[in-house]
Amino acid sequence: MQLIYLPQSLDARSSYGVRAFRSHFARPVVFVPRRPRLPLLSVKAAKDPSGPKVAIAGISGAVGQEFIRVLTERNFPYSEIKMLASSRSAGKEVEFDGETYVIEELTEDSFDGVDISLFSAGGSISKKFAPIAAAKGCFVVDNSSAFRMADGVPLVIPEVNPEAMADYKLGKKKGGIIANPNCSTIIALMAVTPIHRAVGVKRMIASTYQAASGAGALAMAELEQQTRDVLNNDPVTMNIFSWQYAFNLFSHNSPMTENGYNEEEMKMVKETAKIWGTDAVSIAATCIRVPVMRAHAESINLTLCSELDEQDAKAILSKAPGISIIDDRANNRFPTPLDASNKDDVFVGRIRQDISQPGKSGLEIFVCGDQIKKGAALNAVQIAELIL
Amino acid sequence: MQLIYLPQSLDARSSYGVRAFRSHFARPVVFVPRRPRLPLLSVKAAKDPSGPKVAIAGISGAVGQEFIRVLTERNFPYSEIKMLASSRSAGKEVEFDGETYVIEELTEDSFDGVDISLFSAGGSISKKFAPIAAAKGCFVVDNSSAFRMADGVPLVIPEVNPEAMADYKLGKKKGGIIANPNCSTIIALMAVTPIHRAVGVKRMIASTYQAASGAGALAMAELEQQTRDVLNNDPVTMNIFSWQYAFNLFSHNSPMTENGYNEEEMKMVKETAKIWGTDAVSIAATCIRVPVMRAHAESINLTLCSELDEQDAKAILSKAPGISIIDDRANNRFPTPLDASNKDDVFVGRIRQDISQPGKSGLEIFVCGDQIKKGAALNAVQIAELIL
Repeated sequence: MQLIYLPQSLDARSSYGVRAFRSHFARPVVFVPRRPRLPLLSVKAAKDPSGPKVAIAGISGAVGQEFIRVLTERNFPYSEIKMLASSRSAGKEVEFDGETYVIEELTEDSFDGVDISLFSAGGSISKKFAPIAAAKGCFVVDNSSAFRMADGVPLVIPEVNPEAMADYKLGKKKGGIIANPNCSTIIALMAVTPIHRAVGVKRMIASTYQAASGAGALAMAELEQQTRDVLNNDPVTMNIFSWQYAFNLFSHNSPMTENGYNEEEMKMVKETAKIWGTDAVSIAATCIRVPVMRAHAESINLTLCSELDEQDAKAILSKAPGISIIDDRANNRFPTPLDASNKDDVFVGRIRQDISQPGKSGLEIFVCGDQIKKGAALNAVQIAELIL
Repeated sequence: MQLIYLPQSLDARSSYGVRAFRSHFARPVVFVPRRPRLPLLSVKAAKDPSGPKVAIAGISGAVGQEFIRVLTERNFPYSEIKMLASSRSAGKEVEFDGETYVIEELTEDSFDGVDISLFSAGGSISKKFAPIAAAKGCFVVDNSSAFRMADGVPLVIPEVNPEAMADYKLGKKKGGIIANPNCSTIIALMAVTPIHRAVGVKRMIASTYQAASGAGALAMAELEQQTRDVLNNDPVTMNIFSWQYAFNLFSHNSPMTENGYNEEEMKMVKETAKIWGTDAVSIAATCIRVPVMRAHAESINLTLCSELDEQDAKAILSKAPGISIIDDRANNRFPTPLDASNKDDVFVGRIRQDISQPGKSGLEIFVCGDQIKKGAALNAVQIAELIL
């Protein structure tokens, strides 16, 4: 068995704000070996014979690895756990809760007897295997976009709309798919929903500052490598993105739709409508990729249905679950992606009355949230907790 | 005489998109020597005995150096030129148009007989010396914020409101101050004014992605050094900003005002009103500093006074002076800061009907512009050209 060393961008002790998801693998997977590191993180979860049988599909990806960390941090109960990936990673080993697991190839038989599976292996894998797993009585928490807008599939942020999956409980229902929203949607709605519940949001305009992690571990490695290249005056190589990422930014790389908005932007529009259960809120977004590793930021402008004082908005947000406020005007201290990196909470600041709208009918906020955690793995594990 | 080598971030041939403004100095100024580079750029301007006597105040700053480059590129006519700076830089040498100039200390006597001076030495220097120069019959183009909102001082983007300085002509008026707007204002209004002229803008919401250069050459060097530190796993040192800049972003470092908007944001609000000559447009901005070297980006949402089709908006912008369009939806190709770096034009893309507003009453665009060039030095030199 061979230790793998992640690119430094994925290491906890660097100033990227990126905590390690180091693990044992039989051979290095996609990650470039660097230098020997500290011993492995000690992982502790709650193995319990009465717990559910769990599977992770896509264990070798950035979110797959984060599942392990979040399950551990939250003492997620399990009696057995399966580590699933493509044939490329099958046979490699991964350590979890003090035990070593051999990664199995994801097949139609993988879900026999599995109660809960966490999927983060891309949309086409989800499309194929999530219905198979659900038909076998497994609850699938799917991190891809494959089923988010499907009728009958709950799209859930546990702090926002847990009621959408009220029936999805072990023993109450025989399996099913629950979709994890897009990271940008989750991070925005964590902050905007408490305002929406209080006074109603009529219109929301978001401009995002999105991290590399949303495009996966290879994109993070590309940002790191390109940055080294620029600093060394070497030519910059582009594999994941079509243009230079280091010391640059660009419109989100998702496909463009007919109305001139890209799919990432339309996810924010459509998913918000589904999660809030209303088409009455007007939403537009501009999604931009910035050279930051793993936490997204969003500048959000709200038009409210009735007036709300900025101090009241701050009070509402300070009581909201999963929200931390950093809003110190005197010291010009507001949320940054590094504040949010490796944190569960979404951070909110720049809470102020919108001066471009009459009276107190508008509000502006700036939010930062960890894309891999609350934007993906944490939210999925929280959904899994609701199933228990 | 000793060559100085700029930090790599300021070098043309790196992938920062930052072109050299290397010059001869008696001793290195603030810049860290790196490695020997190619011979000096060949500088050519238009020395002409009938041209005006010119002075540059703040020659050793990032914008001061860019003045030299822009004057050269545009063959700005001059009969004599003075290079002025603080006593710290006085005595050093700077090369321009094939001649070597000794930097003189900026004093009350500096402007005797000078026709046009370009100021970029900070607000307090402008406050003190610009009125002195103007009283001596000199036309001062001031890049600081000191006089922007002062009554009687034109605030000019030459493509937008040249009429505001119609009387400011050599031989027509005996000196005066003309203010150069804030970089974020210039870059936004270059793109939004043609739309405003066509159908009227009722409301503008901007979220910015601002480069290091706006905080000066030392901030650019800090971003470069911090990035090296992070990649080397070294502690990050913070001198210019109070928080980590590398692989991070943060709310603009300008002082906070009472309404919760920082001064950079309020400049966009107030300067736009002055330049457009109306208080009727509602404006709000969120200004964010991102780890990019020298070009700003802005996500801009517009509410229009009357409907405008996105194709018509694109046609209007494609005819606008100083604007280049990069708006290729099929290839997901839109403006980036690196596209705009070292370019005169402001680049516009993501031109689309705002889906959060009824019909064709809203428009969204994404703009990028070089902060040092059109955001500062180029705009100032264009103002100086209007004085001729």
